[in-house]
Amino acid sequence: MINIGLIGYGYWGPNLARNFNSNPDLNLKTICDYSEGRLEAAGRLYPNAVMTRDADDLFKDTDLDAIAVATPVSTHFDLAKKALANGKHVWIEKPLTETVEQAEELVDLAEKKGLTLLVDHTFIYTGAVKKMETLIRSGQIGDLVYYDSTRVNLGLFQQDVDVVWDLAAHDLSIMDHLIPNKKLMVSATGSHYYGEDVVAKSLLTIYMTNDVVAHINVSWVSPVKIRQTLIGGTSKMILWDDNNPSEKIKVYDKGVELFETKEDLYHMKVQYRVGDMYAPRLNEVEALSLETAHFADCILNGKKPITDGVSGLEVVKVLVASKESLKLKGAPVELG
Amino acid sequence: MINIGLIGYGYWGPNLARNFNSNPDLNLKTICDYSEGRLEAAGRLYPNAVMTRDADDLFKDTDLDAIAVATPVSTHFDLAKKALANGKHVWIEKPLTETVEQAEELVDLAEKKGLTLLVDHTFIYTGAVKKMETLIRSGQIGDLVYYDSTRVNLGLFQQDVDVVWDLAAHDLSIMDHLIPNKKLMVSATGSHYYGEDVVAKSLLTIYMTNDVVAHINVSWVSPVKIRQTLIGGTSKMILWDDNNPSEKIKVYDKGVELFETKEDLYHMKVQYRVGDMYAPRLNEVEALSLETAHFADCILNGKKPITDGVSGLEVVKVLVASKESLKLKGAPVELG
Amino acid sequence: MINIGLIGYGYWGPNLARNFNSNPDLNLKTICDYSEGRLEAAGRLYPNAVMTRDADDLFKDTDLDAIAVATPVSTHFDLAKKALANGKHVWIEKPLTETVEQAEELVDLAEKKGLTLLVDHTFIYTGAVKKMETLIRSGQIGDLVYYDSTRVNLGLFQQDVDVVWDLAAHDLSIMDHLIPNKKLMVSATGSHYYGEDVVAKSLLTIYMTNDVVAHINVSWVSPVKIRQTLIGGTSKMILWDDNNPSEKIKVYDKGVELFETKEDLYHMKVQYRVGDMYAPRLNEVEALSLETAHFADCILNGKKPITDGVSGLEVVKVLVASKESLKLKGAPVELG
Amino acid sequence: MINIGLIGYGYWGPNLARNFNSNPDLNLKTICDYSEGRLEAAGRLYPNAVMTRDADDLFKDTDLDAIAVATPVSTHFDLAKKALANGKHVWIEKPLTETVEQAEELVDLAEKKGLTLLVDHTFIYTGAVKKMETLIRSGQIGDLVYYDSTRVNLGLFQQDVDVVWDLAAHDLSIMDHLIPNKKLMVSATGSHYYGEDVVAKSLLTIYMTNDVVAHINVSWVSPVKIRQTLIGGTSKMILWDDNNPSEKIKVYDKGVELFETKEDLYHMKVQYRVGDMYAPRLNEVEALSLETAHFADCILNGKKPITDGVSGLEVVKVLVASKESLKLKGAPVELG
Repeated sequence: MINIGLIGYGYWGPNLARNFNSNPDLNLKTICDYSEGRLEAAGRLYPNAVMTRDADDLFKDTDLDAIAVATPVSTHFDLAKKALANGKHVWIEKPLTETVEQAEELVDLAEKKGLTLLVDHTFIYTGAVKKMETLIRSGQIGDLVYYDSTRVNLGLFQQDVDVVWDLAAHDLSIMDHLIPNKKLMVSATGSHYYGEDVVAKSLLTIYMTNDVVAHINVSWVSPVKIRQTLIGGTSKMILWDDNNPSEKIKVYDKGVELFETKEDLYHMKVQYRVGDMYAPRLNEVEALSLETAHFADCILNGKKPITDGVSGLEVVKVLVASKESLKLKGAPVELG
Repeated sequence: MINIGLIGYGYWGPNLARNFNSNPDLNLKTICDYSEGRLEAAGRLYPNAVMTRDADDLFKDTDLDAIAVATPVSTHFDLAKKALANGKHVWIEKPLTETVEQAEELVDLAEKKGLTLLVDHTFIYTGAVKKMETLIRSGQIGDLVYYDSTRVNLGLFQQDVDVVWDLAAHDLSIMDHLIPNKKLMVSATGSHYYGEDVVAKSLLTIYMTNDVVAHINVSWVSPVKIRQTLIGGTSKMILWDDNNPSEKIKVYDKGVELFETKEDLYHMKVQYRVGDMYAPRLNEVEALSLETAHFADCILNGKKPITDGVSGLEVVKVLVASKESLKLKGAPVELG
Repeated sequence: MINIGLIGYGYWGPNLARNFNSNPDLNLKTICDYSEGRLEAAGRLYPNAVMTRDADDLFKDTDLDAIAVATPVSTHFDLAKKALANGKHVWIEKPLTETVEQAEELVDLAEKKGLTLLVDHTFIYTGAVKKMETLIRSGQIGDLVYYDSTRVNLGLFQQDVDVVWDLAAHDLSIMDHLIPNKKLMVSATGSHYYGEDVVAKSLLTIYMTNDVVAHINVSWVSPVKIRQTLIGGTSKMILWDDNNPSEKIKVYDKGVELFETKEDLYHMKVQYRVGDMYAPRLNEVEALSLETAHFADCILNGKKPITDGVSGLEVVKVLVASKESLKLKGAPVELG
Repeated sequence: MINIGLIGYGYWGPNLARNFNSNPDLNLKTICDYSEGRLEAAGRLYPNAVMTRDADDLFKDTDLDAIAVATPVSTHFDLAKKALANGKHVWIEKPLTETVEQAEELVDLAEKKGLTLLVDHTFIYTGAVKKMETLIRSGQIGDLVYYDSTRVNLGLFQQDVDVVWDLAAHDLSIMDHLIPNKKLMVSATGSHYYGEDVVAKSLLTIYMTNDVVAHINVSWVSPVKIRQTLIGGTSKMILWDDNNPSEKIKVYDKGVELFETKEDLYHMKVQYRVGDMYAPRLNEVEALSLETAHFADCILNGKKPITDGVSGLEVVKVLVASKESLKLKGAPVELG
């Protein structure tokens, strides 16, 4: 049994608590939040857990095996570093940290201490992303040509991040998982409503090797919620509509075939095959429940998390470069 | 009765012929195309019209009052210039020309000769765009904050233009019609599958005065057709889904309210009001039929077309600047 | 070349004229309507056709090979009988006639004279119905279990028929085409807003052999247009949504498996398999154009029309029985 | 504080337990189920509640104020009767009982004992039904003309009820709440896959005073889930699509206007006004949470439940008559 403590019982924390509590390998031992009201609410639902307003209680607790960090991004680095330094396995919300250097330090520390560091990029554990992974790895999509995502809604502004760090982070982790091509350069534009840091709408273009290009459109000021991702391959294309309750993944038997010679190009630049569509059945188990079980499995059996610190670091790298390109009104910024 | 000739009976020409033929003020006198087969097809439907493969027949015909040009963009300038020089009113497909200089010359020539020059930006004559215009001009949307459009489909590559000149041209003319703010700068990225000129996917960001920003996503390699445009105002937001047969325009009683002081910003960056939605009934008369009647009205009564040469020129300016930014991988380009 | 005349240039007639005119085997020789205004409109579009207000001109014209009847149902029998009696092939709108006896007489007369009698049940020629036919005949749907259709919209009341004769007639012809089981009995209920003959909403249940049951819901007083048909088989189920522009036919890998023994029933009444869905690509050629070519082919080559008089008669039989059941508030009426 | 016990922790029971547990006026004291496994699961989530396999423990517990019955319908009458006889307030799942006589006995017993009897017709407490109630009561819909509902899905057959008792019961309670007209007669048809009692698909027509007619289409063998209810009034029509996450209720400014004189009828049987649509914002609080609070309020303050025994009895009356009509293949059955 893994004793786990949770820091942060705000928007996402309750979901973690619920899943930790129902997992047979985890024991939700402590919940920490600065708000008395939230702790009271948590106490009613988890009468056997200890409530505290002091995070140090968790770091010092030698019975505690793991700590989950569900606080604002600006606090991630300090809390995760203390947790690792005190020998705790760490589950941390996305994005991992505010800077590349911080992310690298956490990755190194976890590695050195032999501790599990899981970054909660939840989408990776959904039936939709798993199905797309299977389709792509099987080869039936062909070579990847593009990733194009629209992720917009009407959302309350987060205190410490802009819309790119909030919403595009999802696409970046999914791309990291599905597309092996190395990211080379990013161009980002946006609407800076209130100075450089409060971006509420943004367009990102990420240039990758082999001319794979990703376009990402994120917004907090859309009256409707749209979650549409297109993945184009040379043989087939995928449409992932996360709002569609029964047909989240549609696979179109239409592919973009690229030509190599000038003669080919002369008559026909790109060939289209228009065919059938199919919508495979997806695993509908709650992603967070699977991710929780995976975290326990990694701790108990010394496995590397699917969404480990390195994958979290990759996301932070692009986020930081996007911020720079945004200041340059779209001029491209190279990725290390 | 206005005698009109049509040059180009390919993809769009048949629609023009049908509408010209059914308008009581127009007489479809001549149809010109280089293809014998197309002329035969046209001849069956319009037995009273003259068929010719030589465009000069139209320029020289002193009984002809107007000429419609529905040929590839690369031929627009020469054909329209000859038509105007020969004293014909001109209906021309979009985009007006390949360069800013050409567009300016046509505008000047039409002005000097006192002839009608209408650029066929058909969307401006749809019930949807007219309704949005009414909503915006009435003030109920508040101050405009953003324009965000997704216009993607699986389309055969056109011979002489890329996806920006094909699809984004629609958004640019609509923006020109609906948004009075001056366009300052454009950043464009894209997927250059086969060299610099064949762009099949593109993201455009257009910076305007008063911090109004437009984001446009166009693609020829999407397995599904999406036509979604969001227009955000400080009081309300509009969703225009052109694929929705019964609810093309939805008006959300949600607005983005901007704050001016630091105190306001501290607690709440943007305020949301979440309210009702309504979908007004739209005029369902075919846009091309209304545009045809408008063209005849302009000729007969000396009126200035809603989509005149100047509006066509504005679109060309942004298209040309986008092409330059695309080569710079998104670095912004100033608009004259 | 088949010389054809058209009687009735109201709502549907113009579509027939357009398709007859563009078919290479047909010559649209005469158009007849009682309205001068309609004839003028037709004359503009078909300058080579003769216009007349007297249907006898068509019956007497010895050069005329075929006559299309697109008039109210109450006139169908007289016009079609005269046409057949004068040796003309007949294209007639649905439903064929007002009574079973009339339909039988027309079928006999056409048979006796060796003339083609095609009833215009247009849906039978659509890509959607053809695809469903292929799916069902291939056996992959399994044994048919049910047909369930919703066909509602806001429609102007027709002069001489109720909503069952107008809308359910479509389903009856489609069922006749797709389902071989014999129809045994019909129960119909409805909203008789103004006496027995003006039914604006109706529910039909048609009992067939082997316990196949059809449920049909038709309405003229729905604020939205719905066209949804479910066909359930023991192996798979089909959803036909005719309003869906890109996915009209969806095939679900879910079937209803029936059990025969009491033991089976005890534990599990019906088994469900839940699997993938696929949406096959459909032929998008206009159905009326294919039907026109089929009519010409039947005349020229002595073939039997897919939607011949016998199939039109079957539809009339159910319509007449439904009318009787409606008067009985749903009590079932046997089909001859 | 009201001490409440729950009998039945199967499909729906856990939802009741969760809501009872989070309501400040209720104390979930006892949970009863025949399955040891379910009791263990419940025990983990509610460590302070007593678990038992014997329902008599609840009836005999003098500290218990109320009992919720979430068991199969066939057990409802006995359990509810014992609960009331022992002085407990009762929350009971729908449908109330298997027979009209049983329902009447429970209503009388609750009345006599002065106890609260709430039938869990959850839909009545949703934002959608409350909004429709407000719209109808305000008069803006005009006089009600029809209620037309499609409620189909792929569902596991319930052990002791057919699809009418399972799904149509929802519509019957909603109609009872929204439509004041007296129900006169019912015609029901269906697919009796396995004898008279296992109906998996059914069409119901309910005739009410003033010619208001309801059509209800329910099925357990549809590959897709559809929840669409149309309510037609003389001034406006409502579309309730419960699957639509953001626009559950749409109000169409289209009404059916009825005429009274023969002259009116001659030219125009029904007039249509086609206008705008609006989708009002709905209260999104969980219905079961509001219903739980209402139950507590009724007990504490002696109020009559919105969904009391009498409304539950009305539903049972129609269900019983439908069963009879189903055996008669649709012949209408009078409602007492």
